Amino acid sequence: MSKSIPDAALRRLPRYYRLLSQLQSQGVERISSSDLASLLGQTASQVRQDFHCLGNIGRQGVGYRVESLREQIAKLLGMQEACRVVIAGAGNIGRAVAGYSGLAREGFNVLALFDVNEEMQRSSVGNLQVLPMEKMASFMREHHVTIGVIAVPKNVGQEVADLMVAAGVKGIWNFAPTEIRVPAHIVVEDVRLLDSLMVLSARMRGGAGKK
Amino acid sequence: MSKSIPDAALRRLPRYYRLLSQLQSQGVERISSSDLASLLGQTASQVRQDFHCLGNIGRQGVGYRVESLREQIAKLLGMQEACRVVIAGAGNIGRAVAGYSGLAREGFNVLALFDVNEEMQRSSVGNLQVLPMEKMASFMREHHVTIGVIAVPKNVGQEVADLMVAAGVKGIWNFAPTEIRVPAHIVVEDVRLLDSLMVLSARMRGGAGKK
Repeated sequence: MSKSIPDAALRRLPRYYRLLSQLQSQGVERISSSDLASLLGQTASQVRQDFHCLGNIGRQGVGYRVESLREQIAKLLGMQEACRVVIAGAGNIGRAVAGYSGLAREGFNVLALFDVNEEMQRSSVGNLQVLPMEKMASFMREHHVTIGVIAVPKNVGQEVADLMVAAGVKGIWNFAPTEIRVPAHIVVEDVRLLDSLMVLSARMRGGAGKK
Repeated sequence: MSKSIPDAALRRLPRYYRLLSQLQSQGVERISSSDLASLLGQTASQVRQDFHCLGNIGRQGVGYRVESLREQIAKLLGMQEACRVVIAGAGNIGRAVAGYSGLAREGFNVLALFDVNEEMQRSSVGNLQVLPMEKMASFMREHHVTIGVIAVPKNVGQEVADLMVAAGVKGIWNFAPTEIRVPAHIVVEDVRLLDSLMVLSARMRGGAGKK
């Protein structure tokens, strides 16, 4: 697998993936870089450069094969292997993640939520029960969980991350607004909702024209 | 205000803003681009290039003044003017946004949530009441709301966006996993949570080394 995909290109892959999935479901077999670019509101040279990073070079006058390009991106994104996920924190964010149907569709299977709050533990989210936080580590080991979602308050984010790391997690999806420190072999992806709102605010002020 | 900040640089501003705020609260007065870069895990030349876009050139051997740089970025991000916000949809995402204390601290004042569900309308979120959706447009006009948050299901996202646009919104923060079409003078910032999870998954597979 190419290790050399630049981060900026990597972050565009989900968008390509969504568009290609949509085109495929509409029966489109081939598409040119310029048609893709105009559907995405970016330049054709950017599209060609990104796909070139993947080792996929569209043919002049013929374009890209939608199905094979989608499959290639799906593979890079790990969409073809089911992933086991647990969520720490059964507040609004934890519940929103657990209840999001798109996750299961893309192979991310949420197995359980954990919370320290006893009232939360009596509740359920969809068909998932909320379990006591002290059971998280043993549950994760037993079920070979690879992704942990941190949806707990900021002040306990690191503590929960340490538990997940000790329980053998490979990746952490972090919603707590704090920097999480983990060993180098663990991947952390931060979701900073406030940053996105600040970017909206800057764009509203004309700080930048468009996406 | 500079209209020429590239989107990629703009999206790094919130991170600079957070770090500079933290440094300022710790009493740090000046910082070099290389110290900033190592705190952020990026290159010093990237930092210098981004601040150069803002028209701020650090002095050789002296670095940047933390306070003035932070203020400049705050201004670009619109942090110095209070912003009026409403949320359409009082489900988990709407509640999570409404309950996030960081918003008010940065000047984003959530005035109300709206929902079509009558049970939701009898509930409250913090000290905010959930109001009937049919009151949203008149409420927005009356309170000069500039930012609308879309936290409704995908299939009604466009309908809600149209209501917001008609009610004079300037920016839409969209959590619905659907493309929202708006007139050119309205800014839409999409939050695609699933994309971020896909990026985590790709990075776990070695598709990209680091952030």
